[in-house]
Amino acid sequence: MKLSEIAAHIGAAFSGSSGEDIEISGISSPGSASPDKITFVSDAKYLEQGKASSAGAIIVKKGCGFSEKPCLEVDDPYLGYAQVAQLFEDITPLFGEGIHKSAIIDESAVIDKSSSIGPMTVIGANVRIGAHCRVDAHCVIERDVTIGKSVRIDSGAIIRYGVQIGSQVIIQSGAVVGSDGFGNARDKDSKFIRIPCFGTVLIEDGVEIGAGVTIDRGNFEPTIIGKGVKLDNLVHIAHNVTIGENTAIAAQTGISGSTQVGKRVIIAGQVGFVGHINIGDDSFVGAKAGVSKDVDVGARVTGYPARDLMTVRRIEASSSQLPELLKEVKKLRTELNALAER
Amino acid sequence: MKLSEIAAHIGAAFSGSSGEDIEISGISSPGSASPDKITFVSDAKYLEQGKASSAGAIIVKKGCGFSEKPCLEVDDPYLGYAQVAQLFEDITPLFGEGIHKSAIIDESAVIDKSSSIGPMTVIGANVRIGAHCRVDAHCVIERDVTIGKSVRIDSGAIIRYGVQIGSQVIIQSGAVVGSDGFGNARDKDSKFIRIPCFGTVLIEDGVEIGAGVTIDRGNFEPTIIGKGVKLDNLVHIAHNVTIGENTAIAAQTGISGSTQVGKRVIIAGQVGFVGHINIGDDSFVGAKAGVSKDVDVGARVTGYPARDLMTVRRIEASSSQLPELLKEVKKLRTELNALAER
Amino acid sequence: MKLSEIAAHIGAAFSGSSGEDIEISGISSPGSASPDKITFVSDAKYLEQGKASSAGAIIVKKGCGFSEKPCLEVDDPYLGYAQVAQLFEDITPLFGEGIHKSAIIDESAVIDKSSSIGPMTVIGANVRIGAHCRVDAHCVIERDVTIGKSVRIDSGAIIRYGVQIGSQVIIQSGAVVGSDGFGNARDKDSKFIRIPCFGTVLIEDGVEIGAGVTIDRGNFEPTIIGKGVKLDNLVHIAHNVTIGENTAIAAQTGISGSTQVGKRVIIAGQVGFVGHINIGDDSFVGAKAGVSKDVDVGARVTGYPARDLMTVRRIEASSSQLPELLKEVKKLRTELNALAER
Repeated sequence: MKLSEIAAHIGAAFSGSSGEDIEISGISSPGSASPDKITFVSDAKYLEQGKASSAGAIIVKKGCGFSEKPCLEVDDPYLGYAQVAQLFEDITPLFGEGIHKSAIIDESAVIDKSSSIGPMTVIGANVRIGAHCRVDAHCVIERDVTIGKSVRIDSGAIIRYGVQIGSQVIIQSGAVVGSDGFGNARDKDSKFIRIPCFGTVLIEDGVEIGAGVTIDRGNFEPTIIGKGVKLDNLVHIAHNVTIGENTAIAAQTGISGSTQVGKRVIIAGQVGFVGHINIGDDSFVGAKAGVSKDVDVGARVTGYPARDLMTVRRIEASSSQLPELLKEVKKLRTELNALAER
Repeated sequence: MKLSEIAAHIGAAFSGSSGEDIEISGISSPGSASPDKITFVSDAKYLEQGKASSAGAIIVKKGCGFSEKPCLEVDDPYLGYAQVAQLFEDITPLFGEGIHKSAIIDESAVIDKSSSIGPMTVIGANVRIGAHCRVDAHCVIERDVTIGKSVRIDSGAIIRYGVQIGSQVIIQSGAVVGSDGFGNARDKDSKFIRIPCFGTVLIEDGVEIGAGVTIDRGNFEPTIIGKGVKLDNLVHIAHNVTIGENTAIAAQTGISGSTQVGKRVIIAGQVGFVGHINIGDDSFVGAKAGVSKDVDVGARVTGYPARDLMTVRRIEASSSQLPELLKEVKKLRTELNALAER
Repeated sequence: MKLSEIAAHIGAAFSGSSGEDIEISGISSPGSASPDKITFVSDAKYLEQGKASSAGAIIVKKGCGFSEKPCLEVDDPYLGYAQVAQLFEDITPLFGEGIHKSAIIDESAVIDKSSSIGPMTVIGANVRIGAHCRVDAHCVIERDVTIGKSVRIDSGAIIRYGVQIGSQVIIQSGAVVGSDGFGNARDKDSKFIRIPCFGTVLIEDGVEIGAGVTIDRGNFEPTIIGKGVKLDNLVHIAHNVTIGENTAIAAQTGISGSTQVGKRVIIAGQVGFVGHINIGDDSFVGAKAGVSKDVDVGARVTGYPARDLMTVRRIEASSSQLPELLKEVKKLRTELNALAER
């Protein structure tokens, strides 16, 4: 791909010594890039690394261009990196085009001819799969599932019955979408009586689901993963949870039943949410937080129980002084008593 | 199903304006129920929602019946909901009755004729599967596994060699039962020497195992999941753990080796237990707790390290006053010193 | 196997009443061992249990031998147990020798004749598998993966394209090696732009990977799991993480992108690490810790935020006195004010 095409794709201004429109074969880090690769420097403090790189061209922040090599200047070089990386991604199906002869496709399933289905994958009754999807090996797509266009399902993912999936979705290996919710009533003998789930899961456009993620189906209404949501590995989403658009959730976080997460929320790793609470749009939840109450729009919380981030930081700092504080208060007591006796 | 049959099934008293024995085709939430559905109100404060529902009948708490529609009155409407939901659950095998032609069954395996085995499922030597089991697609049941009656194993679950499974058990997609325990000795060079496990896993009747759960086999004696235990998604059970009857464990909790959990214990999500401790019957462990010591029968603990629930709540409340407390103690010191000098 | 062979294998001195070189058929715990089994006592305080055991022989600490039965005395009986247990491990392939007829092997793949491939396993283009490997049922080994010698891959494990695996490696069921890293840039509309990963995962010799573990591929350079590293179940390793030799990580721990973990580090369960930090060699991280900064060589940390272990223990102990401390400071204030007024 010509450098000029890349520049046009990311809306970059050209700069640097050479206007030469070289051929670029890929993207790499400054340290490992060869002259046929483009690289990037997301922070101005790493600019020297960029200059020293063997890369043939570089994406830099607007105003940071230099004369050593062709520079593509953009507002956000990290974003530019992401956009260019997508240009060079290999999207040929891992096990070849078309439907692998070992796949088992129910005769009532309808799969677009442009989509590929890998070896041993099982596709149930009434499944609908749109154009340009890539389903790898050993996937199970149970009956009545609908899948939009350009969806990628990696080897070993399990999509349970009735799940609805939009377009441009990625579901990674080992993910389970549409497992039963964890709902149990308790009888008089403290025995649990399982509550079957009649709802499903709705995965909207642009969602990405990490390896080993589990998403439970709803009781009656669906569990909803909104447009553009990104879920890291081993995240657990319980029944009837709703996640708003463009929210990102890092690894091993768990969200209990019926909790509503807003839009553009950033949730760090290993966070836990109790059920039936609301997490406001544009809020932030720190790593390992335990969220037991509603979180306001735009709020930044952390800790367990989750509280305002700055408050938690202050408490943490104070807590290290606690052993000394105990001694000091004892001394104050002794001295005060002595003084009072005089 | 006739409303009168449903009432009989849950031991409900009839009430309300209409004694008409209508036909009910399913259960739904008050908001989404149509006139052919029954709904429920588990808490009296939502009674208005129940009255406003389009449902044809409703399950309510004893004494809360009203005249707008047929009411089934029971002591515990949430339990009634669970019981009625089970009546309407679709239990036809997802991939059809019988053994799918693509399944690979070792010739020494014995599978009851009433059970179904889904596409691509692999069943090893000497496996025994009882009546009315439903094993979906892409499961692996390794050699020497025994499975009782009416067991449901969802697509992609892995049951490793020698595991013993009772009746009425559910094992969800992506669960792994019988993985190796994490045991390592360390030699003089700090190199780990793996300890192979010769034990197995014993899953008793009525157990439910969520998606992505991992249960390790014992070293010599089996890891035991007692009758009626419910495990939510992504729970980890280490080798030689024993879980007592009717205990429930929420998502992403982990239990280390040889810990004994009692009966009817309620364990919230993301809890961690160290190994070799005893958790008393009827105890409660709060979300994200880190349990490093025995827990008494009936105790309620939370926090990390896990302590009595009320104590932890008091410490949490106090901790927010800690930054102010530090300032106040400094002031006391200054004032006391000044006073002493006078 | 003769007792004398076992003694030689673990470098044990004989002692005890009987020098008889009995035949041993396996190893078991003191409580369950029969006379044809050897057992062990790892701690001198359990020596009575060892004496009371029906085992035909016992591994004990040097100097702890007794006359009741043949004793193999070693420096570290727990290590001796591990070594002997490995002698008795059954390593016949679960689904038989050779390549199962239902496995799908790309014609460009090269598999050593001494290795076994289980039913329904899928092996992609250009895969290389060395001698004496055991791959069980329903595994997926995608294209361009290389696997050394004596590697064990349990049913249902997924090895994604390009992953490099050394020798003597164990990968348990449900593990996913080579999933995409969780990297996203954010555009001006707060929409996430996925960053494709061009790197891979490098699993060195002697590594063990638990059930349900997920290991992400690197952006450009590989994610590296060093020699002899042991990962318990449901551990998450993000892109470009490096784990040093002979480090052990307990269940449900997560390590964020680009963090470097040293050698011989012991990491307990449910720990979380932020990205881009360094964890020193020979350090220890306590259960449920949240590590947000570098950890020094040999340091012992715990808590969240992770701090020196002894400091955290002191703070924990002090914190229980916090509610009382608040009352005492209020009293001091009142009394001091009264005193000042006099």
